[in-house]
Amino acid sequence: MLGLKPIKTLPIREKIAATLREAILAQKISAGEVLTLESTAQELGVSITPVREAFQILARDGLLELKQNKRAVVVGVTEKTIREHFQIRAALESEACVLCCKNKIELKRIDQILKVSREVIEDGDYESYASLNQTLHMELWLAAGNDKLENMLSELWNGLSRGMKMNEEECVRKSLKEHEEIIECIRSGNEVECYLKMHTHIDESGKNFLLQYA
Amino acid sequence: MLGLKPIKTLPIREKIAATLREAILAQKISAGEVLTLESTAQELGVSITPVREAFQILARDGLLELKQNKRAVVVGVTEKTIREHFQIRAALESEACVLCCKNKIELKRIDQILKVSREVIEDGDYESYASLNQTLHMELWLAAGNDKLENMLSELWNGLSRGMKMNEEECVRKSLKEHEEIIECIRSGNEVECYLKMHTHIDESGKNFLLQYA
Repeated sequence: MLGLKPIKTLPIREKIAATLREAILAQKISAGEVLTLESTAQELGVSITPVREAFQILARDGLLELKQNKRAVVVGVTEKTIREHFQIRAALESEACVLCCKNKIELKRIDQILKVSREVIEDGDYESYASLNQTLHMELWLAAGNDKLENMLSELWNGLSRGMKMNEEECVRKSLKEHEEIIECIRSGNEVECYLKMHTHIDESGKNFLLQYA
Repeated sequence: MLGLKPIKTLPIREKIAATLREAILAQKISAGEVLTLESTAQELGVSITPVREAFQILARDGLLELKQNKRAVVVGVTEKTIREHFQIRAALESEACVLCCKNKIELKRIDQILKVSREVIEDGDYESYASLNQTLHMELWLAAGNDKLENMLSELWNGLSRGMKMNEEECVRKSLKEHEEIIECIRSGNEVECYLKMHTHIDESGKNFLLQYA
């Protein structure tokens, strides 16, 4: 109905990173714990090479600290990790919006996503809203026309942002209202307003995320 | 005199990445050429693991495309690679400035860097200016207080931005003038002006870089 493209399967390193990230976020693996390439590979039933790559992804996320001898120490989620993650997302998502403005992007599909978003919220179907939220953001990254930016934003989305919960009416309605305002700014071509509105949208997500972990 | 801290030695993967990057930028390795982990490791006299990591760094830069069987194809520098690189640098450098504003950073060291910059330009010592330029940018990343942002910006700086030449009086004077204006914005606490001024500063670098490769 929305003409959605099939979701690409994640490469094995991303799957391993996602599994470890989820365990660290859920504090099933505690801060200070030492992971080795061998034991992690064995436990997950995968080879060592993608585990090494996953360790590097998580090190970039700030969740692991790489050590000598194929080991990594779990840093865990701190207020600092969360703040830094959302500051970078705010910068890049806002830039994507500015580029959408400059590119005078076609808004037909996005308007359709907003329309369906309003409908699912009226139906109280917040799970569908969460996925429409993701679809809308991804459409903007794509429309920005910068592959590297798109990759960085999807890495960030698959990173800490994946821990975001969207299950309350108030939060979902607020998200939709902000999306509508951002899209109106893109339509009117106001780059600075776009930047500021998207920035605030992501800053607010960061604040909510911090509350979850407080 | 400036109280500079010693430059950290790059990890081996970064050194390998820098060597390959320089060869690709200088077109000593041509687009389309296939690199293998083994032959690259052998040629550089290093082991395979850091070469694998260097390939990943260069793939993120958009200079290599990773293939099956431990191979990578050189993408080479295209207008697209350059445009995407500078758009992302503009986003993150501007964000660093906005954070400097919010943090009401201490500007004493930076004022000192500007003062010495003016002096070396009057002496026609553009080589020293290039390094003061780097020092000033790094001071801003550090003052922004976000380690992840600082790492990303240094990766970008070590990436394509390293190919930037600063050897003409006009270009060096323009750079200094823009630095002075950016710092004035930070001093006055105007976040939006900071964002816009730094954005323009990096956009201009991108345009100059494109001219070098046109």
